[in-house]
Amino acid sequence: MTDPDRRDVDVDRAIGDRRELVNDAIATQLPVTEPERLYEASRYLLDAGGKRLRPTMLLLVAEAVTGVDALAEDYRAFPDCADGEIDVMSAAVSIEVIQSFTLIHDDIMDDDDLRRGVPAVHQEFDLETAILAGDTLYSKAFEYMLETGAPPERSVRALDRLATTCTEICEGQAFDVEFEGRAEIDSDEYLEMVELKTAVLYAAAAAIPAVLLGAEEGVVDSLAGYGLDVGRAFQIQDDLLDLTTPSERLGKQRGSDLVEGKRTLVTLHAREQGIDVGSLLPDDVDEVTEAQVDEAVATLHDAGSIDFARETAQDLVASGKANLDPLPDGEPKALLAAIADYLVERDY
Amino acid sequence: MTDPDRRDVDVDRAIGDRRELVNDAIATQLPVTEPERLYEASRYLLDAGGKRLRPTMLLLVAEAVTGVDALAEDYRAFPDCADGEIDVMSAAVSIEVIQSFTLIHDDIMDDDDLRRGVPAVHQEFDLETAILAGDTLYSKAFEYMLETGAPPERSVRALDRLATTCTEICEGQAFDVEFEGRAEIDSDEYLEMVELKTAVLYAAAAAIPAVLLGAEEGVVDSLAGYGLDVGRAFQIQDDLLDLTTPSERLGKQRGSDLVEGKRTLVTLHAREQGIDVGSLLPDDVDEVTEAQVDEAVATLHDAGSIDFARETAQDLVASGKANLDPLPDGEPKALLAAIADYLVERDY
Repeated sequence: MTDPDRRDVDVDRAIGDRRELVNDAIATQLPVTEPERLYEASRYLLDAGGKRLRPTMLLLVAEAVTGVDALAEDYRAFPDCADGEIDVMSAAVSIEVIQSFTLIHDDIMDDDDLRRGVPAVHQEFDLETAILAGDTLYSKAFEYMLETGAPPERSVRALDRLATTCTEICEGQAFDVEFEGRAEIDSDEYLEMVELKTAVLYAAAAAIPAVLLGAEEGVVDSLAGYGLDVGRAFQIQDDLLDLTTPSERLGKQRGSDLVEGKRTLVTLHAREQGIDVGSLLPDDVDEVTEAQVDEAVATLHDAGSIDFARETAQDLVASGKANLDPLPDGEPKALLAAIADYLVERDY
Repeated sequence: MTDPDRRDVDVDRAIGDRRELVNDAIATQLPVTEPERLYEASRYLLDAGGKRLRPTMLLLVAEAVTGVDALAEDYRAFPDCADGEIDVMSAAVSIEVIQSFTLIHDDIMDDDDLRRGVPAVHQEFDLETAILAGDTLYSKAFEYMLETGAPPERSVRALDRLATTCTEICEGQAFDVEFEGRAEIDSDEYLEMVELKTAVLYAAAAAIPAVLLGAEEGVVDSLAGYGLDVGRAFQIQDDLLDLTTPSERLGKQRGSDLVEGKRTLVTLHAREQGIDVGSLLPDDVDEVTEAQVDEAVATLHDAGSIDFARETAQDLVASGKANLDPLPDGEPKALLAAIADYLVERDY
């Protein structure tokens, strides 16, 4: 039937169409009620934008698993693998809300002032409100995951995956902090940290709709694998973009990860090749010139580190797409494959 | 049969025996694994002590609902109302872990340096680790609540109550912060805040074991009512103790809530009687003398505010005990009644 690798699907449109629906669903499910300041803070980052990649992935998996036409069904009453109806949109909102909670708390921990072009929640509001807004989104996500109307045995499995995922995200963030203080990290340790901190939420987004809709265990496992693969690829691409995307486009100085001494797959590989990564650029981001960044990137390129990271990401995408094999062919499956490509081909 | 009001049950021993079991269960279910610093921080406050009132209440409800002899059963394989076995201890640990998460985040928000006689987690570790430890405990609590072995339809209801409870705790904390900046709060608003911030977790501790064990809906509702009543009484008693317990016993200056301008049922009542509560004591806790506190308490007493708070707490305890009526008579029920009394009779 259709080739899951085909490029005639319009991934931008697929993401854009679903983003609109997810935005509406967030506004419906998370209204600003009393106490108002708390719910304003809880909505603030969600309202500031975002691509909604994870909920979009969740909705596409729902379509792919059940083999319905893309966007043909009401996500609030989605036909499952038996003859029930599941509110998969509520699950999609749940995943996006978890993502938002982690960003709010991460920005406090990393002392980041800006996010999505607006002040971080602890800057726009205050530290107390930001902690509390994150905590509120956390439990709301569990409430939403319980509101899908799925049979209890499926809901329990979805909830279990959601809870475990949240624990792993915390562990990943803790490893990230721990690694900052350690001299030697190898690339396997780095990839494991990325798996926990970033990829498990993609895995949840891909696996949970299959669980809720009653898909077979093997399909659920494959989809989790797809999410883990593309989630890791996504993070590696993020690290590469910091080196290759013009500063105006990035919205910050290109090469700032290098200046800050952030570990990435690129720098870990370069270090293993004997490059003194710490001295590639000045320590003060205001003193860095584009020419210096070009030179640093050339050095990393010559060491094979850029290619190593790029190839690792591409391998993960290939593995991710292979994990889609158990799904019935069709536009949703093709879009999931295209999203995997998109994650490593995007230039911002 | 037995009188649920009888005083021949030994509440201290009942709490003490179960505290030991809960402590062991916490050590088993929340081991210090990698990343170590994260799990050390997650355990730190739990290991620092605490009466374990909420998990003890949960275990007693399990005993009362099923009518088994107190402490006669293994809480890890507890006979339910049909012929299944439920790990009610896992639910008890879940509730205590939620309590610990809220304390860790509250101490950051309130900038409190000490808790249970040891440094707060953000002082002993750091802000990042404290936020992350709280977040980890949050998801772990959901994991533990999913590990009771209860049938899925009961687990889903227990999870739903847990998630809603967490949202309400956040809302209660947000109202508490909001009230600090408002001139006029009436006692109904105050009691509603206390219900959200404090009492709902007691309600969860009392209702969830009944849900997990398959008790009838009416019993579950009554037990939730018991928890709400005694939880509010507990908070009012806490406020009274700040005025009446000697400083050495309290571990801080008696009357410090008054110095800090904290709203309590006592001060809200006094304000309604025309007392200028803000000028009862100096603004600096170091300048406060015991004689001044005695005088302030006498003023509040003369205004009827102490009695008003005490009677409100006693009414709540009476209502809480009436909510135990649907339970079969026996030692567990008598102990639940005695715990309600204990909460307003304790002097520290």
